Amino acid sequence: MTSPAKMQELIGIQLQTLHLQTEPATLYDPIRYMLSLGGKRIRPVLLLMGTELFDGNMHDALSAAIGIEVFHNFTLLHDDIMDNAPLRRAKPTVHRKWNSNIAILSGDAMFVKSCQLMMEVPDHALRDVVNVFQATALEVCEGQQLDMDYENETSVTIERYLKMIRLKTAVLLGCSLKVGALIANATEEDAQHIYDFGVNLGLAFQLQDDVLDVYADTEKFGKQVGGDILSNKKTYLLLTALNQSSGLLKEELLQWIHQSISSDKNVDKVQAVTRIYNSLGVREQAEKKMNQLYQEAFDHLSAIPVSSSKKEPLQKLAESLLIRDV
Amino acid sequence: MTSPAKMQELIGIQLQTLHLQTEPATLYDPIRYMLSLGGKRIRPVLLLMGTELFDGNMHDALSAAIGIEVFHNFTLLHDDIMDNAPLRRAKPTVHRKWNSNIAILSGDAMFVKSCQLMMEVPDHALRDVVNVFQATALEVCEGQQLDMDYENETSVTIERYLKMIRLKTAVLLGCSLKVGALIANATEEDAQHIYDFGVNLGLAFQLQDDVLDVYADTEKFGKQVGGDILSNKKTYLLLTALNQSSGLLKEELLQWIHQSISSDKNVDKVQAVTRIYNSLGVREQAEKKMNQLYQEAFDHLSAIPVSSSKKEPLQKLAESLLIRDV
Repeated sequence: MTSPAKMQELIGIQLQTLHLQTEPATLYDPIRYMLSLGGKRIRPVLLLMGTELFDGNMHDALSAAIGIEVFHNFTLLHDDIMDNAPLRRAKPTVHRKWNSNIAILSGDAMFVKSCQLMMEVPDHALRDVVNVFQATALEVCEGQQLDMDYENETSVTIERYLKMIRLKTAVLLGCSLKVGALIANATEEDAQHIYDFGVNLGLAFQLQDDVLDVYADTEKFGKQVGGDILSNKKTYLLLTALNQSSGLLKEELLQWIHQSISSDKNVDKVQAVTRIYNSLGVREQAEKKMNQLYQEAFDHLSAIPVSSSKKEPLQKLAESLLIRDV
Repeated sequence: MTSPAKMQELIGIQLQTLHLQTEPATLYDPIRYMLSLGGKRIRPVLLLMGTELFDGNMHDALSAAIGIEVFHNFTLLHDDIMDNAPLRRAKPTVHRKWNSNIAILSGDAMFVKSCQLMMEVPDHALRDVVNVFQATALEVCEGQQLDMDYENETSVTIERYLKMIRLKTAVLLGCSLKVGALIANATEEDAQHIYDFGVNLGLAFQLQDDVLDVYADTEKFGKQVGGDILSNKKTYLLLTALNQSSGLLKEELLQWIHQSISSDKNVDKVQAVTRIYNSLGVREQAEKKMNQLYQEAFDHLSAIPVSSSKKEPLQKLAESLLIRDV
């Protein structure tokens, strides 16, 4: 079995040597830039692990792994335009470094490129791989649209929130693993199990992010604590709090959400909303749900009839993603 | 053989009954809207004709035909954002009727949908069809980027202009025909001939559009004569004029291009620039080039070893597109 570090190295090399035309530079330079910003390359690593879990040859899966990463970066590029985000991995976003039109079009070209890479899988897996990839791509669009819709909605339920993060984030993790499994000729049943493992892991991962945003040690987390609270982002914590508070507590929460505050009151807002979360025990509820999803993920992994030692890399990766110091 | 009218009817029905999810409405309603705006559906008709030319079953090619039309409409949707166009076929563009973010994302989803439709071709043609489709999709992105680049460039040569319109417009016509041919199991050589027929036809068609914009009978043409002149669009005519004028004439032309004029001087500008075009004979040169491309297209059609009667529908369609009353 190949170590995750070795996989990451291979993926890095493939991304660097990815064949991209040079002209027009205004189309292809933003793609190179976006792919050079780095990241943990979790999706392609999952894809390669999916192949090795079922005794496939990792080299048969490399193009698809790069395809998944290019696709993921395409979605980030277009999301950054929609969110009007100034930075991506501490560097200017494409639409700021160039402009929105160039960002739209180089994103489109990136998507085409990802489809071309997915086509390089062996014949036996071609239809199944491309079908799950395209179905997932459509779901990711749906998830991003729901996320935008929810910004302006007052009554988002927990259930709809979970649907949104499933589509926007989790299905691509499941898809990566399933594509890897299909390349290795896994049975439909096993491919489904590894897909469900990835989806549940992705959901748990997103809930952890929601918790970390409020309760993380700032230095370890690497971003400002309370960012979600300040932007009134509808996270699992906020939606649970809105759902379960009543009377004065709910009034106070709504007040903090609806008033525009000056930046010197930011700390007050984060502290006040965190206090409300604490009094309702929303952190514990989020962690309970997270653990439940994590358990569900591992139930699917357990159901796959291959030796435990083969599952170890996936297990370790999942643990490293999920058990972070809060 | 199926009549073009029958083909158009079939395509219309397929587009109307195209399976699209309903939720989120903000993602899928714009797609339905875009596809409902109509159009001549030339690309899917060409695709079906490509199949029938080589004795293929048109019904094997219907999904791909719809895929090409959905793809074409996706490019229009994103182009409209980039051009900040208010209207498309006399109706509000998606980014005006909804907003830019929704237009970006529903465009992305449309592109995924077009890929899914292309995947529905019979197994024997799958790889070849998807490969030519995706290579073309990338070229269309390049063409649109070149078009945007040229807006800010002072020295666009005729050669580069032809490259741009080839990528932006012509290759998709060639691709449509080639996909149809591949579905009908045409030889690689014949598929290439029908591709080249489409590309040359597309180029000729674009040059005709450049000529019509200046010299058409307004009522028959259906849009304002001189629109390209007023927007300083770098057409075949303008680039030829810039290339061939000198001294006072060139100075006058540059003056008209660079000065911002009030709308009551629009007629003056169109008349003055047309006069310069006439004195240089650029219309005749454009028509000469157009006829040359048209001839080249038909040379490729002639090279295909099937009976003339089989070629008749394509020939008639080409003539109907190209011989318009100027």
